[in-house]
Amino acid sequence: MAVREEMFDTIKAVFKKHGGVTIDTPVFELKEILSGKYGEDSKLIYDLEDQGGEKCSLRYDLTVPFSRFLAMNGVQYQNIKRYHIGKVYRRDQPAMTKGRMREFYQCDFDIAGAYEPMVPDAEIVKIGVEVLTALDVGEFMIKVNHRKLLDGMFAVCGVPEDKIRPISSAVDKMDKLPWLEVRKEMVDEKGLDPLVADQIGEYIRHHGGEELVEKLATDGRLMANASAKEGLEAMRQFFKYARIFKIAPKVSFDLSLARGLDYYTGIIYEAILVESEENQRLMAQGMPQQASSTEDNQVRLGSIAAGGRYDELVGMFAGSGRKGKASNNIPCVGISVGVERVFSILMRKRQYEEIKANHTQVYVISVRDGLLEERMAIAAELWDNDIKAEYMFKAKPRLQAQFNACDKDLIPLSVIIGKDELEKGVVKIKDMRNKNAEDSGGVEVPRAHMIQELRQRLAL
Amino acid sequence: MAVREEMFDTIKAVFKKHGGVTIDTPVFELKEILSGKYGEDSKLIYDLEDQGGEKCSLRYDLTVPFSRFLAMNGVQYQNIKRYHIGKVYRRDQPAMTKGRMREFYQCDFDIAGAYEPMVPDAEIVKIGVEVLTALDVGEFMIKVNHRKLLDGMFAVCGVPEDKIRPISSAVDKMDKLPWLEVRKEMVDEKGLDPLVADQIGEYIRHHGGEELVEKLATDGRLMANASAKEGLEAMRQFFKYARIFKIAPKVSFDLSLARGLDYYTGIIYEAILVESEENQRLMAQGMPQQASSTEDNQVRLGSIAAGGRYDELVGMFAGSGRKGKASNNIPCVGISVGVERVFSILMRKRQYEEIKANHTQVYVISVRDGLLEERMAIAAELWDNDIKAEYMFKAKPRLQAQFNACDKDLIPLSVIIGKDELEKGVVKIKDMRNKNAEDSGGVEVPRAHMIQELRQRLAL
Repeated sequence: MAVREEMFDTIKAVFKKHGGVTIDTPVFELKEILSGKYGEDSKLIYDLEDQGGEKCSLRYDLTVPFSRFLAMNGVQYQNIKRYHIGKVYRRDQPAMTKGRMREFYQCDFDIAGAYEPMVPDAEIVKIGVEVLTALDVGEFMIKVNHRKLLDGMFAVCGVPEDKIRPISSAVDKMDKLPWLEVRKEMVDEKGLDPLVADQIGEYIRHHGGEELVEKLATDGRLMANASAKEGLEAMRQFFKYARIFKIAPKVSFDLSLARGLDYYTGIIYEAILVESEENQRLMAQGMPQQASSTEDNQVRLGSIAAGGRYDELVGMFAGSGRKGKASNNIPCVGISVGVERVFSILMRKRQYEEIKANHTQVYVISVRDGLLEERMAIAAELWDNDIKAEYMFKAKPRLQAQFNACDKDLIPLSVIIGKDELEKGVVKIKDMRNKNAEDSGGVEVPRAHMIQELRQRLAL
Repeated sequence: MAVREEMFDTIKAVFKKHGGVTIDTPVFELKEILSGKYGEDSKLIYDLEDQGGEKCSLRYDLTVPFSRFLAMNGVQYQNIKRYHIGKVYRRDQPAMTKGRMREFYQCDFDIAGAYEPMVPDAEIVKIGVEVLTALDVGEFMIKVNHRKLLDGMFAVCGVPEDKIRPISSAVDKMDKLPWLEVRKEMVDEKGLDPLVADQIGEYIRHHGGEELVEKLATDGRLMANASAKEGLEAMRQFFKYARIFKIAPKVSFDLSLARGLDYYTGIIYEAILVESEENQRLMAQGMPQQASSTEDNQVRLGSIAAGGRYDELVGMFAGSGRKGKASNNIPCVGISVGVERVFSILMRKRQYEEIKANHTQVYVISVRDGLLEERMAIAAELWDNDIKAEYMFKAKPRLQAQFNACDKDLIPLSVIIGKDELEKGVVKIKDMRNKNAEDSGGVEVPRAHMIQELRQRLAL
């Protein structure tokens, strides 16, 4: 929990840097709110028992509840940058090593509102870069693509209208499966013409930077498709802003990126760790490993953040507005940080002994004689002066047991008292990190100066 | 949420000052874990639908899950100071004005482990005093009593063994109902001898400070009961420590305090707001009001924190331990802060306009010409220097609209650019809180000094 809280604090600091405010939604929603939003994965939704009253389900993600919230309160929240760190629920087979659990945290940042095209989108990707940099997860990159470009590309290749979403889902598996298996799914399972599949295969091999925008712009067949043209234009705009934000080197334009969820309508992105000695070392320590037999050399460690633009989702709830007129649609773009995976990476980087779970600064110790009430009085004085302090809840604790308590919790300082010190009106202050230093017995200070001395040493 | 987060941060700071570490337990537990722990209130538990697999329920409080956790992991967590801020669920009729909801937060601090009698208990009450003082809820006091004293007192009055818990539940209503109604419940509903009820009535009128301990110690009939004697001895010990912690003036020893839950075994306590001009004013603003026609003059605003010692609860789960031997019992004492009620008090104290929901420090503004990309570049520079910044997502925003955005979010500073400034290589920095000051147009600084100047003004 100490590492987890540190991780959340780091993420929150970035979210707040961008003007984010937090909104909390309930852990359960009306069942009907969640229905029809997650495709096949709907079977993983936890329902509450019907005990009379509304039928409810535990939330599956934070995006649908946020969209429901916007639809209900749209007049007041037309424009909002909101972040939410909360638990979501999936009735899945847990796999702890892969960071897949039935209850887990999501950390989402979303910008709602009708704005200049690609401006909030670029900021969201910038936020992703800042979060992953601040978390120090290792070298990463952010793959981006655009749903309109993808849909146009499928159309140009000859995918029938009604097969576009299923084929898109198949492409989404490109980070886990080799192309031949994805092709097999398209042709054998989803009945796609093999020649069409091969054309898709050609396109989705493309990845690169801004130069890929210009390369695709010369593809006459693609540019003849209105959707593809619009998508590519948006990507050109995105890269211009990415350059201004100095994040272009972290971004890879990748035509194989499809993202599973149906509700995306514009830019989509996914952050992954890239091959590097450090990352390889982490993998060797049991990092969730995915198939890496793709055609290029890029090692796939799985997505650590993902998101995209979803302009139609709020509209699906329109009419359920309670305040004022039924709210209209509100375009949104957002990112979700894969904190469980990030957490498992961070835990591998940390030595267990180095993690200080509590924040205690001073331990109040007695030599001989117990002096329980005197230790209590000193602890109370420390607390009342905003110093984090503890002492042993024993009438006559052994000195070594008190020292061990400091070691265990990495407590930096101690105040040591004995009968002699009490009579002389002094206490000893000892730095517990300096085992063999000169002050091994502690430095004597007048009791009246104790707080001042401690505050100085703690730099308060 | 801004006020709520501030409240949680205040509470957490106190918890950490006392060496607390946080433990997170799942939102749902196995149904059997919760069964038989909450008496009549068990009907308020939310069950998950049986979708195959374990039968689960949403947690009703944080105490039972913590006890279950200790029983499962007892070897490792024999001694722990843990805090937990989390949501709990009750299938109740919501009453927003009373702060009663189906989903709400609890903030618990508990000390587990076998220690010197009353030492952790006194620290928990000290924590309660510190939390409520830090939250600035208004004048409060903490009523304390002891289950063993209460049970002994009932026995001495002649309450039959099997009626002790039901009669205790009736006494628990003394803060909501006048004595005559409580007596009626005892006699008419619960079949208690009226003479016995009247003796109870005599005892539970007692409240006071430490002197009440000595007064009761002279009650020969009471002292002849082993349980009552043990309870009173514990209260004497408690008051000695309360004096050392300098919290005795906040504590009222109140024989009418019974607490509803069955699992308490030792000291019990409940914090309430007391009559004061400030608190009266808050009540007039619609503060959840409870019947106050009690015999004494104390106005009852309802409990804002409560808890006690529960030495047997972990033992109820013993045998479900997974790690090593089935763990034995672990004695515990804890407090739960009634944050929903505290929140409604804090909201009444704050002016809506004064609440700064976001943390943005600098707004990047253009005069004429839009200059979207230049604003983006400046915002990125601010973010990369850890300054919280925003700008308007519009190509050509009006100046007034940008000023309004600063006002709305109480943003203290702005960086203003125009074509002139860009050409001269300068920006203007304006203090948005000084509407009519000398620098109404902002102070010009070289672009290269912008970050330095802002950091200085923000005292970073």
